[in-house]
Amino acid sequence: MFSKLKKIFIGQPLKSGDEGDEGHLLSKLQALAMLSSDALSSIAYGPEQVVLVLVSVSAGAIWWSLPIGLVVLVLLTSLTISYRQVIHAYPQGGGAYMVTTENLSPNLGLVSGGSLLVDYMLTVAVSVASGADAITSAIPALHPYNLHIAVFLVLGLMLMNLRGLRESATSLMIPVYLFIASTIFLIGFGLFQLLTGHLPYHATSHIGQTIPGVTVVLLLRAFTSGSASLTGVEAISNAVPFFKAPKAANAAKTLAIMAAILGFLFAGITFLNYWTGIVPVKGMTTLAQMAQAILGSSPIGRLLFYIFQLSTALILAVAANTGFSAFPMLSYNMAKNKYMPHMYMEKGDRLGYSNGILTLAFGAIVLLLIFEGSTESLIPLYTIGVFVPFALSQTGMVIHWKKQYGKQFLKHSLANILGAAICYTIVGILLLFRLGAIWPFFPIIAALMWLFLSIKNHYNKVALQLRLDEDIERIDFAGNTVLVLVGNVTRVSVGAMNYARSIGNDIIVMHVSTKETQEKDREVAREFQEYFPDIQFTNIETSYRNIIRPTLRYVDRIAREAEKKGYTVTVLVPQFIPNHQWQNILHNQMSLKMKYYLKWRENVVISSYSYHLKE
Amino acid sequence: MFSKLKKIFIGQPLKSGDEGDEGHLLSKLQALAMLSSDALSSIAYGPEQVVLVLVSVSAGAIWWSLPIGLVVLVLLTSLTISYRQVIHAYPQGGGAYMVTTENLSPNLGLVSGGSLLVDYMLTVAVSVASGADAITSAIPALHPYNLHIAVFLVLGLMLMNLRGLRESATSLMIPVYLFIASTIFLIGFGLFQLLTGHLPYHATSHIGQTIPGVTVVLLLRAFTSGSASLTGVEAISNAVPFFKAPKAANAAKTLAIMAAILGFLFAGITFLNYWTGIVPVKGMTTLAQMAQAILGSSPIGRLLFYIFQLSTALILAVAANTGFSAFPMLSYNMAKNKYMPHMYMEKGDRLGYSNGILTLAFGAIVLLLIFEGSTESLIPLYTIGVFVPFALSQTGMVIHWKKQYGKQFLKHSLANILGAAICYTIVGILLLFRLGAIWPFFPIIAALMWLFLSIKNHYNKVALQLRLDEDIERIDFAGNTVLVLVGNVTRVSVGAMNYARSIGNDIIVMHVSTKETQEKDREVAREFQEYFPDIQFTNIETSYRNIIRPTLRYVDRIAREAEKKGYTVTVLVPQFIPNHQWQNILHNQMSLKMKYYLKWRENVVISSYSYHLKE
Repeated sequence: MFSKLKKIFIGQPLKSGDEGDEGHLLSKLQALAMLSSDALSSIAYGPEQVVLVLVSVSAGAIWWSLPIGLVVLVLLTSLTISYRQVIHAYPQGGGAYMVTTENLSPNLGLVSGGSLLVDYMLTVAVSVASGADAITSAIPALHPYNLHIAVFLVLGLMLMNLRGLRESATSLMIPVYLFIASTIFLIGFGLFQLLTGHLPYHATSHIGQTIPGVTVVLLLRAFTSGSASLTGVEAISNAVPFFKAPKAANAAKTLAIMAAILGFLFAGITFLNYWTGIVPVKGMTTLAQMAQAILGSSPIGRLLFYIFQLSTALILAVAANTGFSAFPMLSYNMAKNKYMPHMYMEKGDRLGYSNGILTLAFGAIVLLLIFEGSTESLIPLYTIGVFVPFALSQTGMVIHWKKQYGKQFLKHSLANILGAAICYTIVGILLLFRLGAIWPFFPIIAALMWLFLSIKNHYNKVALQLRLDEDIERIDFAGNTVLVLVGNVTRVSVGAMNYARSIGNDIIVMHVSTKETQEKDREVAREFQEYFPDIQFTNIETSYRNIIRPTLRYVDRIAREAEKKGYTVTVLVPQFIPNHQWQNILHNQMSLKMKYYLKWRENVVISSYSYHLKE
Repeated sequence: MFSKLKKIFIGQPLKSGDEGDEGHLLSKLQALAMLSSDALSSIAYGPEQVVLVLVSVSAGAIWWSLPIGLVVLVLLTSLTISYRQVIHAYPQGGGAYMVTTENLSPNLGLVSGGSLLVDYMLTVAVSVASGADAITSAIPALHPYNLHIAVFLVLGLMLMNLRGLRESATSLMIPVYLFIASTIFLIGFGLFQLLTGHLPYHATSHIGQTIPGVTVVLLLRAFTSGSASLTGVEAISNAVPFFKAPKAANAAKTLAIMAAILGFLFAGITFLNYWTGIVPVKGMTTLAQMAQAILGSSPIGRLLFYIFQLSTALILAVAANTGFSAFPMLSYNMAKNKYMPHMYMEKGDRLGYSNGILTLAFGAIVLLLIFEGSTESLIPLYTIGVFVPFALSQTGMVIHWKKQYGKQFLKHSLANILGAAICYTIVGILLLFRLGAIWPFFPIIAALMWLFLSIKNHYNKVALQLRLDEDIERIDFAGNTVLVLVGNVTRVSVGAMNYARSIGNDIIVMHVSTKETQEKDREVAREFQEYFPDIQFTNIETSYRNIIRPTLRYVDRIAREAEKKGYTVTVLVPQFIPNHQWQNILHNQMSLKMKYYLKWRENVVISSYSYHLKE
């Protein structure tokens, strides 16, 4: 049943070897679709955030979005150059976590890694909630089901990712390229209209005009809000192993292409917003207002407007997918370093890291349910969660170049130094002016650090306990005592006895007799002796209904006796295996229970003799 | 973690032997509280159902509720006598299911059993939903949370029942006796007022008056609605083993006491309703209107009114508990006859049949969620589900007496014949006049029958396959081949090797080497040879990442070779057991996975060598 459902939703299991073929690796076009939606979709709200802060003083302050936009573009350029260097220096993926761990310190690496893990959950929650908003804005009838749609989207993305990478990327290419194409068209058409004089100049004030109330603090806040557009830029550097060979070169090219598109869209939208003088209003985004102003109200214009709105909605939903490729990869790297459970290193039936995918979906759904409707309040948290690892990895790259080039490191690390400076500035501004919104970042990171270190500590302790000392003994036992647990005399118990006699020097058969079954038990003893008259049959009488405790007591006695003789002890549990797995539910799980309790006994080896039913 | 939570909610596990002491068995007073709430709570809606049908013609038809009430009382008397006979004839419990199976046919027994199982789920769902309604009628602010309260009540009852019988009964005594006392007080005070002339005669018509439109069909429908008050009467006969000795006598006495109380309450309410001339209105039950009329509007009268309403609400919530004692007992009996999975025969930590309790709670919650708010539509279904097994068990009792007394059976079975006749009549009326509401009964019962018979068939097939034929061979194997799976050389693998040498004639060590780990693997081989130079170490190279398939292939090869030599094969899987159970989540479950796949291999015995960590 379950496995059939799984096949329908997840697909046939793939052979592990299939991983080796190129089929599941990403071409540049696919990778761009898969890894850039987070960054590109920020365009839908990033420029608006800048304008929102500025108009809090006066609509005339909007012209300041142009110089702020320039700084954001500088930041983008510096981050791009910097992450290209990360890709070449760390082709195995890992991004900020790896760079920080190797160049600064493992503990700072954990800060990076922990921030990013939480951030991917936030990305999924925020993007999916915004995507649901966009959908329900287009179809107002669906509005009451906003949260349902968001959760459904998470589950849909989860299933796509469990199916495997290639299918995911293919199905995601359409929305991403639709968004890129329609936004480039919008900007291009806007500029064409402007140059042919069909887009009138409505700016709220001229560039350079002095606006009372504009302070440095205001501009800094506007800048940090705009820099939210740059979240997601690091995704490609975490996913280098997914690229087709030459992996690093392809990843670097993809990053450059993405940055160019992102920069063009950001610049174009910021400029056209200034030119058309659009001011934020409730119920319609500035981007939608601008699209309406540019496309006009002719029937074809309205059609294009709806297509543009649809593509915005789709890319927001798809942006969540970035998290689904980055989170499992990062948890794999952290698990490899023993900071997360080993299970994040296991590949699922379709060669994805299923546990990472499931954990992310679970976390995002929990976030959606907790912050139902108020995901906007998560955005500052999300920004600090991105820029702390950004800053750390830029710093790490500077150290990296210093190690590699010694005193000539400066010319290699100019991009990184500039990037780091901007990132630290953003973190500083967030700390100074947004502390009320970002404080949960600190306890969460502290808790994650504690968790990571405890896990590492546990693994280290285990390794220490398993390590062989010089003086470890090779023990030559004198023989083996086999204790066979027999409930009744069937083909199962006879088969188990035949096996027991092939491995044991001493063979003891034990049967537990309860008050209620005494009569049947005498019959069992008689039947057994008929088949195996030469074997010791011990009947333990108990006044309890439970047969586990008397069994354990007897096992302990046998173990003590065997130890005196220098024998090992095998407890043989006979069981039968039904023909269909679901039939197990119909059978008394006594043998499982027994094995569970016996597992805690030392110096006893538990064996299962399985008799297979044919019908 | 889980076990701590379990202790808080369920209590410390009890020794199995504790069952034997009298502490967990029920005294008559406790049993009355525990087993009668279903029947007694029907008083809250049964008489009203009769009046509802009658006033559909005219308010004047209400006087007919008196003769109909008399027929209900006759039915009650006959059912009581009949079930007293069931108790004495079947002191091991089982009720309608046992009686029908033994006296009519096993298949009709399954119809009885299946109906009752579904019915207990309906009891829980209907009672709990009505209880929630009563609560929210008292505290209107809670009204939006009706469904939440109902689900919460089911979970509460489930936990109480998982804690064990005695505690449940003790905590349930208060609401049941509060309801009995307050209703008897209400009726007694009403009659006192009536006799002292303070309760004016307001009947809508005199007894015997001819009301146009009253037909036989109408009276029959009214009668079947009234007989819904008798659901739950059979509960005591299913639960005889829970009584203190002398079990049967105590159970029979308890049944008689309950029937007397039920009859008195039913008669009193029906009569006072006629006398005060109360007509159903929306938003207030007839019982509540009657209580208000009798108790008056003085401050003390209003206080008593609230107490009465509270006790009604409480007993409805508690009525659901009847299902929680009857369902697990019935599923135990059906599992004993192999019609239900064995797991329903297992006792939990607190000596209750946990699986039955959990199944019932799950089913009731599903019903609540499906029929959210419209539980009234379930009541006809509930009635047919009760009266089909009633009718079958009454018929079964007639056969029982015939077997026992031969030709003189008539005088012993008068009560049963009358009861059966009335029950068949009710079923007939339901079929004729309520088919639209009761049809789901038939597909449900058909599906359950199929399930029961499939389960039985499976158990029979298994028993047949396990049975020893005369010619079953005792095989003397020549020796044993042990295949030890070694991942790396640690204390675990060295311990496993020591054990393997104590049981094996041939010992083979196998290690799987993947492309990614070749270097490490050479180290493992070298280290191993250092410790055990005399043991064959086989390194299987695989181009896959997955190590399970090459392992299985090699196991198959070894098994074939061993078979030629007349050897048995043991696959030894070394593993370590962490000091705390939760730490298992941190470890690669490869040994579990391996054992799972190996289980499907025949002629291979799987052994686990467990090394126990201390920290």
